Amino acid sequence: MDNFSFYSPTEFVFGKDTENDCGRYVIKHGGKRVLLHFGGGSAVKSGLLGRVKKSLEDCGIFYTELGGVKPNPRDSKVYEGIELCKKENLDFILSVGGGSVIDSAKAIAAGVCYDGDFWDFYCGKAAIKAALPVATILTIAAAGSEGSGDSVITKEDGMEKRGAGSDLLRPRFSILNPELTFTLPPYQTACGATDIMAHVFERYFTNTKEVEITDRLCEAVLMTMVKETPRVIADPENYEARANIMWAGTVAHTNIVGVGRSQDWNSHGIEHELSGMYDVAHGAGLAVIMPAWMEFVYKHDVMRFAQMAVRVFGCQMNFENPEATALEGIKRFRRFLHDIGMPINFKELGAREEDIPTLARNMGIKDKTWGFVRLSEEDVRAIYTIAAKAEL
Amino acid sequence: MDNFSFYSPTEFVFGKDTENDCGRYVIKHGGKRVLLHFGGGSAVKSGLLGRVKKSLEDCGIFYTELGGVKPNPRDSKVYEGIELCKKENLDFILSVGGGSVIDSAKAIAAGVCYDGDFWDFYCGKAAIKAALPVATILTIAAAGSEGSGDSVITKEDGMEKRGAGSDLLRPRFSILNPELTFTLPPYQTACGATDIMAHVFERYFTNTKEVEITDRLCEAVLMTMVKETPRVIADPENYEARANIMWAGTVAHTNIVGVGRSQDWNSHGIEHELSGMYDVAHGAGLAVIMPAWMEFVYKHDVMRFAQMAVRVFGCQMNFENPEATALEGIKRFRRFLHDIGMPINFKELGAREEDIPTLARNMGIKDKTWGFVRLSEEDVRAIYTIAAKAEL
Repeated sequence: MDNFSFYSPTEFVFGKDTENDCGRYVIKHGGKRVLLHFGGGSAVKSGLLGRVKKSLEDCGIFYTELGGVKPNPRDSKVYEGIELCKKENLDFILSVGGGSVIDSAKAIAAGVCYDGDFWDFYCGKAAIKAALPVATILTIAAAGSEGSGDSVITKEDGMEKRGAGSDLLRPRFSILNPELTFTLPPYQTACGATDIMAHVFERYFTNTKEVEITDRLCEAVLMTMVKETPRVIADPENYEARANIMWAGTVAHTNIVGVGRSQDWNSHGIEHELSGMYDVAHGAGLAVIMPAWMEFVYKHDVMRFAQMAVRVFGCQMNFENPEATALEGIKRFRRFLHDIGMPINFKELGAREEDIPTLARNMGIKDKTWGFVRLSEEDVRAIYTIAAKAEL
Repeated sequence: MDNFSFYSPTEFVFGKDTENDCGRYVIKHGGKRVLLHFGGGSAVKSGLLGRVKKSLEDCGIFYTELGGVKPNPRDSKVYEGIELCKKENLDFILSVGGGSVIDSAKAIAAGVCYDGDFWDFYCGKAAIKAALPVATILTIAAAGSEGSGDSVITKEDGMEKRGAGSDLLRPRFSILNPELTFTLPPYQTACGATDIMAHVFERYFTNTKEVEITDRLCEAVLMTMVKETPRVIADPENYEARANIMWAGTVAHTNIVGVGRSQDWNSHGIEHELSGMYDVAHGAGLAVIMPAWMEFVYKHDVMRFAQMAVRVFGCQMNFENPEATALEGIKRFRRFLHDIGMPINFKELGAREEDIPTLARNMGIKDKTWGFVRLSEEDVRAIYTIAAKAEL
């Protein structure tokens, strides 16, 4: 096991009606003047924002609203938030929404406590040394931002997408009410589930040996997703299934399923080019890329893929031919993704085979990537090609 | 899934040589004048304390020593610590040892910030409203105190053993170096492993349905213990096995394997009477009691015990007779405990069957206990009787 540090100081408040308590938690975590930060109209229409405001008012907390945060959050909204916090002398940011709204809140939190341009943190010019406390009320399972100190922002000038992170940006509390995810359509639900599973797989495929506890924790989350995702697709208002997925997503993202060993993350890099070029959902892109990546690299550690096949997808071990078991596991994963409504090849995703050389080039690989298997640009082309032609 | 709050703000620093960094972490978490709190001579003899002092000195941190904390820590040492902190104006407690030393440190931390007698917190007269920050360097896997806000202290006058808890007592950081557990003898190692497994089982046997994620996380820790404990008994300096057990023990105690549902804890209550009367190790008592408790209650939910048998102990499901599978699982658990060197009945533990009525009476059950199955005093007598006569 490699040395590691595990730090997840967020207070997770989970369950029905928990958003009605948000005022009390703001006070507990030291907030007096709050920026109430949210996205589009769904939080307003569903009545969620009204309940949040009522809780703040009942607790006598001053707040100012900033809505309209878009998916792939932009720097312009961050500048607006920073100005507002300074003008109103706000000391706490309560973010209501999914990953984009939370990421935007984190950028504002860091920017308020900095004399220069907040973008300095995102382009690597400066490190975050102070930030306003951030808290979240999550409306989409998968984001992960509710339990992490990471944030991704897009600069409108040039549409540059960059990340920054600090333990100071970890939410003080995150309210997770599975009922708030009932209205998420099946396709978005499946994209979220795929993203959760991909985040675990990126940690599961490691070259560090004998970290049984982390293996087993990864498999625990994956088996939960395999059981609960079809239930929630079939019955979107199934509270127990929604609850299991929402909590599994948060557990996965605290990195408790990743400590003590090397990780991979190449599938994420390969996918980012797809969602960049075609504006497809990240989860849908991962559904196409991840099994293809597995088929390309499995020979590097056949027994690890056989372990996944047996432990996660319930395959029988073929003791005479472990490779057959490894491949069977990947096949079952792809079929699972298809069954929950995800695309499994370029055609279903809306990507074009002729773009493969451009996609691979855009990754900007100098020599090779890092990870479970180090990949050259040629390797990435081969993975895109497998993904393009994949069938059940 | 029941509503819950999950809060584990401790920074866990895990791995080889990590104690040499303790000074840096004290500074990071705001400590300037430290009470260095430890137990007997083993931390001195092994050189651990010397390395800790060197790290503090290298970082220019003032410290005062308080050693000699005993297992089942006493109030007298707590009073001594409180006096010392006040006299030397200390602002941070660094605790080096196992659960007893950490529990004692927590009591001191709360007592320093309170005008009255610290025992008020333990006898329920007052709630903890402030405490000095506490941090730990753990030397025994199993304690759990390194990741919790709980503390148990014994009052010498009357030998009353009481607990207190608060999020304010959660360690700011805990340093976990598996190498520090190499010298722990096989019997104590097995006691610790049994305790870790018991803490998970107390959470596994629940009446809340459909919490798949928590079930799977429980099973992840249990399977890890089943694999790694025999390895560490056979080879005490196996770093990977020690590391898996140490981290599994911490993961179990953060309560991430218990959220969202009812728990049991009756085996712990029943065991406490045994270790109280005979001065046996808590883990050894649990090895005798827990399988007996399982045999007494399994009919309450046969399929849950069958699930344990199949998923944790690898039994084949008997679809015509699930009860046979449930009983096979319990049998395998008892054999596992025997194989790692634990007692499995009263004789092996050093307890007497004729004491059973007294033991059961001492629990002071008014009507029935709470838990997975609510137990009367008569039920407890029956469980002791099963435990007394148990065979492989």
